[in-house]
Amino acid sequence: MLEKYILAAKRSEKADLVLKNTQYLDVFSGKVRKGDIAIVGDKIVGIGEYEGREEIDCSDLTVLPGFIDGHVHIESSQLSPEEFASLIVPRGTTAIIADPHEITNVCGIAGCEYILKAAASVPLDVMLNLPSCVPATPFETNGATLTGKDTAKYVARNYIFGLGEFMNYPALIGCDADALKKAEAAIACGKVIDGHAPSVSGYDLNAYLCCGVTTDHECSDKAEVEEKISKGMYLHLRHGSSTRNLGNAKFMTAENSRRFLICTDDRHAADLKEFGHIDDALRKMVASGVDPARAVACATLNAAECYGLKFRGAIAPNWLADLAAVDNMKNFNVKLVVKSGKVVARDGKPLFDTSKRYLPKNVLNTVHIPRLTADDFKLDVNSDRLKAITVEQGGILTDCETVTVKRADGDVSVKDTDLLKLAVVERHKMTGNIGKGLLKGYGFKGGAMGLSVSHDSHNIILLGDDNRAMAGAANRLKEIGGGMVIVDSAENKIYSLALDIAGLMSSRDAESLQRDSKELIERAHAMGVKRGYSAFMSLAFLSLAVIPKLKLVDKGLFDVEKFAFTSIEE
Amino acid sequence: MLEKYILAAKRSEKADLVLKNTQYLDVFSGKVRKGDIAIVGDKIVGIGEYEGREEIDCSDLTVLPGFIDGHVHIESSQLSPEEFASLIVPRGTTAIIADPHEITNVCGIAGCEYILKAAASVPLDVMLNLPSCVPATPFETNGATLTGKDTAKYVARNYIFGLGEFMNYPALIGCDADALKKAEAAIACGKVIDGHAPSVSGYDLNAYLCCGVTTDHECSDKAEVEEKISKGMYLHLRHGSSTRNLGNAKFMTAENSRRFLICTDDRHAADLKEFGHIDDALRKMVASGVDPARAVACATLNAAECYGLKFRGAIAPNWLADLAAVDNMKNFNVKLVVKSGKVVARDGKPLFDTSKRYLPKNVLNTVHIPRLTADDFKLDVNSDRLKAITVEQGGILTDCETVTVKRADGDVSVKDTDLLKLAVVERHKMTGNIGKGLLKGYGFKGGAMGLSVSHDSHNIILLGDDNRAMAGAANRLKEIGGGMVIVDSAENKIYSLALDIAGLMSSRDAESLQRDSKELIERAHAMGVKRGYSAFMSLAFLSLAVIPKLKLVDKGLFDVEKFAFTSIEE
Repeated sequence: MLEKYILAAKRSEKADLVLKNTQYLDVFSGKVRKGDIAIVGDKIVGIGEYEGREEIDCSDLTVLPGFIDGHVHIESSQLSPEEFASLIVPRGTTAIIADPHEITNVCGIAGCEYILKAAASVPLDVMLNLPSCVPATPFETNGATLTGKDTAKYVARNYIFGLGEFMNYPALIGCDADALKKAEAAIACGKVIDGHAPSVSGYDLNAYLCCGVTTDHECSDKAEVEEKISKGMYLHLRHGSSTRNLGNAKFMTAENSRRFLICTDDRHAADLKEFGHIDDALRKMVASGVDPARAVACATLNAAECYGLKFRGAIAPNWLADLAAVDNMKNFNVKLVVKSGKVVARDGKPLFDTSKRYLPKNVLNTVHIPRLTADDFKLDVNSDRLKAITVEQGGILTDCETVTVKRADGDVSVKDTDLLKLAVVERHKMTGNIGKGLLKGYGFKGGAMGLSVSHDSHNIILLGDDNRAMAGAANRLKEIGGGMVIVDSAENKIYSLALDIAGLMSSRDAESLQRDSKELIERAHAMGVKRGYSAFMSLAFLSLAVIPKLKLVDKGLFDVEKFAFTSIEE
Repeated sequence: MLEKYILAAKRSEKADLVLKNTQYLDVFSGKVRKGDIAIVGDKIVGIGEYEGREEIDCSDLTVLPGFIDGHVHIESSQLSPEEFASLIVPRGTTAIIADPHEITNVCGIAGCEYILKAAASVPLDVMLNLPSCVPATPFETNGATLTGKDTAKYVARNYIFGLGEFMNYPALIGCDADALKKAEAAIACGKVIDGHAPSVSGYDLNAYLCCGVTTDHECSDKAEVEEKISKGMYLHLRHGSSTRNLGNAKFMTAENSRRFLICTDDRHAADLKEFGHIDDALRKMVASGVDPARAVACATLNAAECYGLKFRGAIAPNWLADLAAVDNMKNFNVKLVVKSGKVVARDGKPLFDTSKRYLPKNVLNTVHIPRLTADDFKLDVNSDRLKAITVEQGGILTDCETVTVKRADGDVSVKDTDLLKLAVVERHKMTGNIGKGLLKGYGFKGGAMGLSVSHDSHNIILLGDDNRAMAGAANRLKEIGGGMVIVDSAENKIYSLALDIAGLMSSRDAESLQRDSKELIERAHAMGVKRGYSAFMSLAFLSLAVIPKLKLVDKGLFDVEKFAFTSIEE
């Protein structure tokens, strides 16, 4: 087993692949060194002067260890794992810690299994964490429930890497028995527990950490960074599409820098395609003044150490041959990617088959609703004074505004106002639940729009000023197995795009998906959605019942601060 | 399971133990912070303001994580594991990576089991590596053999932490099948492989590393340090009794410092008692200009990371409550030691029962030799020109000098010369082997001296100028089950000290052992052993057939450079 590596290492035999004349980053010392990198099988066997059966001249490249995304929800790209890999691998990412929180909330453990099996055909290592919060809250209907007992059963399985971000920190701190069972199960089998604890500090943080949580990607200022690091956490610098805190890199010091990783958390296909993945985070960090070697360590060695990935995250004999060769450590243009010893991407293009799709039945056709009619969207209230949700542009925080409405025929009319009807249609279990509310200031007019992505239970969320259009939108989503939809009442037309995998992701290629998605987004803006909003994705967060202040779920209007349902009537 | 920690962390319940008003070192940030350290069971649950059922005021102390000795042969202290702990735990050491190479060469796997079971009664975590080189060389007779097949069987056992320092690097680099089997077995069960590769570099080092070796404690200069770190090794800074390279700490940089640990390797009881253990290494490092926080990280967090010891090596919620409270980070006088949440030492004194001894039969009475007579030590040669061993003072390197001797009655006479007879008597398997040689310039006269500690096979090594005295010395060692002995021919007296455990370690307490040992050493010097030598221990290394140049083993005189036996006749 070892002999072939040894013989190549000492040059008694040729290596399989040699990257000739490289400059490479020694992340252990933070120094750029020179040499040929010799590879046998999936291992680096030596650095020096080597000959290989295949040789690639790298005179003008700087070779880095392959990048590790420390925390990502693949689903947020709306791409299949295969297509996701086709975008990020050419950007130098060779491993991800994936938390399939979204698809598991739709499909249960089958969602986890799908992600892993789909990713098996692409040259990307997916370390799959079992989502810890399924459902995210007890106040909504989702597609599956992972109790403490379920978690204990699944987290011990070989294919599960760890326990996904424990967002329900109040449950742990509050000693909720089921939540504790989940953490205890992960501890019992020695698996990592990722954290998510925005602004949690002091004694609450101490309590949270006592549950074995090791990471956080939610820090927002220096004090939070310093406290969490001093208490032993690893911190992800986040470079997502909507939420970012790469700026925390400025709090890195010589002493604490080993505790920083990089993650993308939620990153859309468009950003992956246009700007990149971890390569883009490195570019931004270095542009902001971070030492390049230190930045790269965050994306490589530090991540490997945090997650106990042995012999990974550096360029050294016996370490995994995952490599990203860049033009330089300023621009980080990835020119060549080696995954497990094989050249898998060049000049930003994947060299692997990107057309494969693993599509098991249990992640398809996941929209289960009765056929809806205009009447289902009537808002029958007993008062003219109603609560409306407002949402900040470019963010996900909402507020509550009391508005005066006109009522007629057991309904509220939003014509000629800046109000829209908002509805969350339960789509997993045919309960018939429709949560109803009002949205103010979003700007859409003349029909309805909606999608089957709505955090974290991913019911159908719709807005509109026309009940019939809203029903039509929901029915179309049922037909296409989930996705995005716009109904133009004036034209009497329905425009839609399928997200056939769990109603969250598309089995199509990124390029055509994006083209169509862009068209739909532009149509939404043309119908009035203000440019400050991300037309569909801003909508997708209006049911996220853990982010203040007023949200809508399938069971009704939810006051996040009181952590309880609230009446729409003021 | 977790609830009690959480409740104490958030101050809903009192902690078990609180170190009040501490300054403590946050090794993650390299900063000294302030707060009460609250402990429940064996865990730290929080830092802040806490109340405990037991409280200890630490206003004038600086609390550090308990020290980890990254590589140590307990046997070199000549103390039982229990007594060893009674010396090092009060010095702040709470965990060791132990390699029972010596006792395993005498007793086989029973030696490993003995060390672990003996250590079970003391508050010291012993991570036990299976020795990889038993026997150390094929040229000598030792007490046990661990083949590749044996290693595969044992290394997978739960109680075995990893594979001990792979000293036989030529075997790995040379693709020796049995050596490879050992490394492969450790890799197969995911266990660490410690290294030992003095001056190995370049392609040989690449080959050695391809066998999964992760550490080294033998670096002697900057180039060696830099190469080994750049190739992914962790380096132990060694603070042993005879071999030290703490000075390598000057090659630590902000970037590479996380790759440095501290170890003692071989450290005598006298040094442990007088100067200390890891505390002494820290003192010396800081005195030489190393940043105190960085030095402490080597002995704590870095060691834990290297060996994959989770939640250990720092002061943070959920981390193991192993703590060493010192006066300051200059003197490192350890005032209070907490092991797994219990106060186990104060002011340099152990608070645990130090009188216990686990003494299984299979580590006792390990000297198996026939009764010897003066004739057994005759040196019957055919030439007057013989090779004599010379040994550097204060070191273990030997040289070869050709001397002219007087022969009579089938023997060599060393009377009135600066030569001594040297003999290695096989003591494990009753083979009757006696390797014979000459030693020049050691200085002893008027009898014989010897001991049952002789690296690495631990046969009896004797020197003398009187055959009868040499036989008497050997026979006494048999009677007492091994140890140290001096025969004074003029007085016709035998002085001895038993090392009853495997002929290597004493079951007595350190203090009385040292008193008697010192007396014996003084007697040896009084009989002429030059002060530049460590009277007995210099002798113990004369059979170490892996250190140049001329050595004596039970099968004869060995030329280390030619790696072959050599005739005593020039």
